[in-house]
Amino acid sequence: MIRPAAGEKIAGSGFSVIGLGQCSLDILGCVPCYPAIDSKVDLTDTLIQGGGPVATALVALARLGEKTAFVGRVGGDDFGQRIRLGLQEEGVDCRYLLTDSGATSQFSFIAVDQRHGSRNIFCHRGSASPLGEEDFPAVSLRDSRILHLDGSHPGAAVAAARWARQSGMVVVLDGGSWRPELEPLLPYIDHLVVSEAFVKALCPGSSPQQALKLLMVYGAQAVTVTLGAKGSWTLPQTGIMFHQPAFDVTVVDTTGCGDVFHGGYIYGLLQCWPLDCIMRFAAACAAIKATALGGRSAIPGLARVNRFLADASSRQELQGPA
Amino acid sequence: MIRPAAGEKIAGSGFSVIGLGQCSLDILGCVPCYPAIDSKVDLTDTLIQGGGPVATALVALARLGEKTAFVGRVGGDDFGQRIRLGLQEEGVDCRYLLTDSGATSQFSFIAVDQRHGSRNIFCHRGSASPLGEEDFPAVSLRDSRILHLDGSHPGAAVAAARWARQSGMVVVLDGGSWRPELEPLLPYIDHLVVSEAFVKALCPGSSPQQALKLLMVYGAQAVTVTLGAKGSWTLPQTGIMFHQPAFDVTVVDTTGCGDVFHGGYIYGLLQCWPLDCIMRFAAACAAIKATALGGRSAIPGLARVNRFLADASSRQELQGPA
Repeated sequence: MIRPAAGEKIAGSGFSVIGLGQCSLDILGCVPCYPAIDSKVDLTDTLIQGGGPVATALVALARLGEKTAFVGRVGGDDFGQRIRLGLQEEGVDCRYLLTDSGATSQFSFIAVDQRHGSRNIFCHRGSASPLGEEDFPAVSLRDSRILHLDGSHPGAAVAAARWARQSGMVVVLDGGSWRPELEPLLPYIDHLVVSEAFVKALCPGSSPQQALKLLMVYGAQAVTVTLGAKGSWTLPQTGIMFHQPAFDVTVVDTTGCGDVFHGGYIYGLLQCWPLDCIMRFAAACAAIKATALGGRSAIPGLARVNRFLADASSRQELQGPA
Repeated sequence: MIRPAAGEKIAGSGFSVIGLGQCSLDILGCVPCYPAIDSKVDLTDTLIQGGGPVATALVALARLGEKTAFVGRVGGDDFGQRIRLGLQEEGVDCRYLLTDSGATSQFSFIAVDQRHGSRNIFCHRGSASPLGEEDFPAVSLRDSRILHLDGSHPGAAVAAARWARQSGMVVVLDGGSWRPELEPLLPYIDHLVVSEAFVKALCPGSSPQQALKLLMVYGAQAVTVTLGAKGSWTLPQTGIMFHQPAFDVTVVDTTGCGDVFHGGYIYGLLQCWPLDCIMRFAAACAAIKATALGGRSAIPGLARVNRFLADASSRQELQGPA
C-alpha cells in the first residue's frame, strides 16, 4: 500500500464511500430485435457513457449527495479519458484513478432489445494490469466510512478490505459473478450483495434462499441476492430472511440496475437505516434507473427517490394489503 | 456543386479514383460464440479502425499505389477524428471530407464469431446530414479517372455520377443493399457490383444469374454479383456471363471483404485489364483481407496480391485441370 514519506502530514480525507473496482466505457445501442448471423442491424438509439459496477454505484451515491472517491485504473486511450471525465463530472473524486498509458481501457458494447430492455454485453476487459496491494492509497483514504468492492483488482481488494476492517470501516461487495479468487475476500465483507449468477455458480443446485444461508458462514452482517424483476432476498446475521419485491416500472434498459441498487444500499447504510428500509430504497433506485437507456442516465437524486417511494406507498394504500 | 469564383484558376487534381460515400468507425470484437439473451460475453480480441464501403475501397486502392480522394462527412466527435486520421494515414486525400461539428459520426460494433469469421453488425448511422449536390467539389476533382459510389449521399451521388459521365470518367457502384432511392443512380453506372442481398431485394425470386440480366437494362458495361464463399458472377455488356470462384483461405473475419473486392476491381479497371483478369485480382484482394480481424488490417499491396495469385496458379497446375 502507498505509505506517507517520513514527516509527511497525514490528513484523512473523510470520504463517505471509497470504491475500488472496475470502470468501463459503455457503448449502448438499441436494436428492434436480435440480428441473424452474418447480418446487419441499424441501432435505433445509441449512447456512450461510463459504466462499471463500483464506478456506477459511486455515481449513484454522488447524486444522492455523498462524498465519494474511486480507486481503479484506465488505459491511456481516449476511452480512458471519457471514463475519467464521466466520473469527474458527477463529482466522484478521481485522484486515485491511475492511468496505464500503454494499455487499452475496458469497454463494453451493450445491445439493448428495445422490446423489453433485456441486453447482451460484449465486454473488452482492457489491457491495463489490475491494481496490486501497493497501489491502494490506504493512508490518504482513512476517516472514510465505507469501502465498496466488486471483486476486480484482487490483490488490492484483499489488502484494502483487511485495512478497512482494521480501520473500523464497513466493507460492501458487489458479487456480480463468482470466481475462485473472490474467496479470500469474503471473510472481510460486512455486506455481501450478490447476483443470481453468483449463487448459481458458487452454490449449484441451491435455491437463492438456501444459498444465502451458505454464504452467511463467511461472517457478513447481511447477505442479499438480487433477482432482477423477481426482487431480492436478504438474510441479516441477526434476524429473519425477507423479500423485497421489485417495483413495477416500464423497463427501457436494465444496464447498471445492479450497480445502482448497490449505490442505494450503501446510501441506506450511511443513514443507519434498518435493513428492510435499505432494501426498499435500493430497489427504488434500481427501478428508476431502468426507465432510461444507459447505466447512468436515469440515476435519481434523493428527492426523486423519495417521491417515487411516496407514490408507490399511496398506490399500495389504494389497492389495499396484498 | 461547388463552382470556382470568377477568375479563380482551375487545375484538375488528377486523382485515379474519387470515392463519394460512407465512412464509419468499426469497433470489432471476437466472440467464442454468440451470447444468450441477458448475458455477457468476454471479447477474445478487439480492434478499432475505420470502415465504410467506399472509404475502405479507397484504402485498398491506396495500398495498391493509386492516388485517391474521399468525399463524405463525419461528425464532430472523437470517432470522426479517428475516421479521418485512419484515411489520412493511408494516404487517402481527405480535404473534401467535411465535418458536421454538432453531429455524431457513423460507427459499428461488429461481433465476429471466432469459429468461422461470420459476423453481426450493429450500426449507428450517425446524425450528420448526407451531402447534397452543392457539397460535391466537381471542379476540383476533374481530370480524375474513376468515381466510386456506395449509394449513400443520394443527392450528391446522382449529381456526381452525371458530372463524371459527362467528364468522361468511369462510374462504379458498390450496391450493398437495395433501396428505391438508388434507382435514379443506376443509368449513370458503368460498372455495377452488387451483393446477394441487393439482387434478392431488387429481383425477388430470381437467381443471381437471372438478376444480372435484369440489371443489365440500366446500360452498365458490366454487372457483377458477389456471393461470398460462392465467388462471383459477371455479365459483360458484350460477352458471355462467367464465374470467378472465391479463393480458399482460412477466414478470420469477412468484414470489409466486399469493400476490398471493389478496390481490387477498380484497380483492374485502371490497368485496362480484361474483365476475367479483373475479377480474379479482386477475388484475391478480398481473400487476403479475410485472413485478419478488421476491414483494413490485411488489405494487401500489389506485390502481396501477385504472390498470392502466383501461388494459387502453381497449386492449380499441381492439381491439374478441374
